[in-house]
Amino acid sequence: MSARTAYRGTLVDFTDDPRVSAGALRVIDDGLLVVNDGKVESAGPAAAALAALPPGTPVVDHGGSLIMPGFIDAHVHYPQTDVIASHGKQLLDWLTDYTFPTESSFGDAAHAATVAEFFLDELERNGTTTAAIYATIHPESVDAIFAAAQKRNMRVIAGKVMMDVNAPDSLRDEAEQSYADSKMLIERWHGKDRLLYGITPRFAATSTERQLELAGKLMDEHAGMHMQTHLAENHAEVKWIAELFPWSKSYLGVYEKFGLVRPGSLYGHSIHLSADDWRTLGENGAAVIHCPTSNLFLGSGLFDLDAANASGTLAGLATDVGGGTSFSMLRTMHEAYKVAQLARRPFTSLDGFYLATLGGARSLGLADKLGNFEAGKEADFIVLDPKATPLIERRYGIAQDMTQKLFVLMMLGDDRLVARTYILGEPARLSA
Amino acid sequence: MSARTAYRGTLVDFTDDPRVSAGALRVIDDGLLVVNDGKVESAGPAAAALAALPPGTPVVDHGGSLIMPGFIDAHVHYPQTDVIASHGKQLLDWLTDYTFPTESSFGDAAHAATVAEFFLDELERNGTTTAAIYATIHPESVDAIFAAAQKRNMRVIAGKVMMDVNAPDSLRDEAEQSYADSKMLIERWHGKDRLLYGITPRFAATSTERQLELAGKLMDEHAGMHMQTHLAENHAEVKWIAELFPWSKSYLGVYEKFGLVRPGSLYGHSIHLSADDWRTLGENGAAVIHCPTSNLFLGSGLFDLDAANASGTLAGLATDVGGGTSFSMLRTMHEAYKVAQLARRPFTSLDGFYLATLGGARSLGLADKLGNFEAGKEADFIVLDPKATPLIERRYGIAQDMTQKLFVLMMLGDDRLVARTYILGEPARLSA
Repeated sequence: MSARTAYRGTLVDFTDDPRVSAGALRVIDDGLLVVNDGKVESAGPAAAALAALPPGTPVVDHGGSLIMPGFIDAHVHYPQTDVIASHGKQLLDWLTDYTFPTESSFGDAAHAATVAEFFLDELERNGTTTAAIYATIHPESVDAIFAAAQKRNMRVIAGKVMMDVNAPDSLRDEAEQSYADSKMLIERWHGKDRLLYGITPRFAATSTERQLELAGKLMDEHAGMHMQTHLAENHAEVKWIAELFPWSKSYLGVYEKFGLVRPGSLYGHSIHLSADDWRTLGENGAAVIHCPTSNLFLGSGLFDLDAANASGTLAGLATDVGGGTSFSMLRTMHEAYKVAQLARRPFTSLDGFYLATLGGARSLGLADKLGNFEAGKEADFIVLDPKATPLIERRYGIAQDMTQKLFVLMMLGDDRLVARTYILGEPARLSA
Repeated sequence: MSARTAYRGTLVDFTDDPRVSAGALRVIDDGLLVVNDGKVESAGPAAAALAALPPGTPVVDHGGSLIMPGFIDAHVHYPQTDVIASHGKQLLDWLTDYTFPTESSFGDAAHAATVAEFFLDELERNGTTTAAIYATIHPESVDAIFAAAQKRNMRVIAGKVMMDVNAPDSLRDEAEQSYADSKMLIERWHGKDRLLYGITPRFAATSTERQLELAGKLMDEHAGMHMQTHLAENHAEVKWIAELFPWSKSYLGVYEKFGLVRPGSLYGHSIHLSADDWRTLGENGAAVIHCPTSNLFLGSGLFDLDAANASGTLAGLATDVGGGTSFSMLRTMHEAYKVAQLARRPFTSLDGFYLATLGGARSLGLADKLGNFEAGKEADFIVLDPKATPLIERRYGIAQDMTQKLFVLMMLGDDRLVARTYILGEPARLSA
């Protein structure tokens, strides 16, 4: 493929949060996305753009389909690929019965590599081009996911889980060692090609105070680094944290104490929070990550996007596989809608697609690189075929405007909708 | 195809409710389903059954796949096919904004026929071989769905909606006329081939007392007839019913007064009920129909299967398209699980598949004809391919036993899983 290639179709992206700016949804019915050297060169109406293209520029016609920025999955566990759809239980039992036994095998580099490839295949099949990924405690598991993502030119955040207490022997590290391993992995991978390291204390219950302190130290020592963890997912978990850290005013307070509430901090779930917690998150530039399919699957509770917005807290959307039940960000939006309905809160198709694209990029602090078709951004994008199934084709045709059409796609769509996934302007080559 | 044909694969069905009988799930790994003249002749291990087959009997090999009774969707609105995935609102607004305008056009026989064909295609594509279907107030809409189902040899229950108040002019009938029309349609269709009529007062709010009385009269005049309606779906609806029928002790009490709580009565939703209501339902042999995707989509509430069981009330499972968000009974089971998790109630894969097959047949009073592979039953069955997607193939392979495998299918499956749908032993011929 030549350095410059143009893609024709209906361009759909967001210039801002649709809750903040009424005109944030940008739709160009017959549009042209021009990609040069893996970056967006321009995005505009096809008629004018075609005339301005240098002679000989290849034009790929996705007419009849939507061209959209790639989806961003802001919280997902690649080693849990094989426990997706494991029956029953709420969070703490689920960790013990399914997650921990599965994660124990990721010290085996070959196994980790196999699962990493399958996992990234699933991401690409579902139109997800960037993800914030938990590995396991094993450095080998981090090597495996970064190596696989590097081969595919994907921009991912990933990190070694830090977990030195309240976990089986085979899944516990040790505070100082976890610090040293993380540091070694940061040096090995962070900033190589498109790879970004995320410091990953699993959650407060499985770290000693010393380990949390060292996680904060890692943040201090590496400017602009991500930190990903879990927060207030489940009532029993919240209660347990209160017992483990009796000195803390709240669950979030534990992380705050160790300097982990700051820009780059990604808090998965964040369901059971007080007004004070929300204020702290917003004031400190942290992000919360909504994982609706997981929250319904584990019966965890109903995330409050309105509270995030009101407190100025960044919000992302995520599958949380294997607690989540689908790799599809479309199905994730679908269930975000249902969570909002149960809580009698608004959630539109614009909310869904924004969170899965520009909103996700903002939550990860990557909006300078990803999330929409602004010139200069990295050209990760997807092609959605509204004829993917007979039902989608019929309903999409009936829908009156793009807001309705996007609602149809988010309620009825799945991986079939994703006709093509492009990474830096190149079609994703699934390993399978 | 000859009169007798055999189908080889892993046979999976239920001999009873798995909550009542521990051995209710029947799995024959290498099984043979022998169909003769559209009925099940036998279902057993292939080795012995093959030896006993008359020479020349065709054997269709579905090895590697599951052969299962067809799914039963116990509550669905075919005229709402085109409003599936319409954005927003709870029940009453949703009816006004989407459902009623759409249903207005079903007096047009050609339109009704087109939608009926598409709808039945979707049912068959999703492995649903029997459904209890609402038409609209228009006799033409009933003719259309019965004619289309008859052509496909499908066993369906359907009926004209009775609605003479609290609806737009174009969608109101009149009590005596609705009685006469229903009677005419019963004579025209009920018992023809596999078609069954269901008396269909929409819900108490849209019928005058006279119309409800006449619905009861129709039940009295036609032994063994079905009656389908809605019950206690949504808080605002329950409140409205209390205002409309101040004399009634409860929502259910309105139906009870008019002789509509009896064997053959199918109560869609049935979420917000008292212990007294449950007792009344159970004692009178009525059935409740759980519509989880709709209940989450419209934020209606969390159905209580345990209460149904405890009161001896029959329970079925349904998509409730267009309030429901999928024609797939697999996705419906998936969300039934999530509803149960939110309410901290148990729901296993056996519950899901039982409700979608034998449980559904029992809820409709059709277990003498449908629901499992007992000899003599009608041979409506489906072939589920556990290699339908890479993720399902991977997880299905890891799952340890059939209970886990079924859980994987119900959490990850959709129409792709349904490799083949057989109606009376013949492959469904989709109209598309």
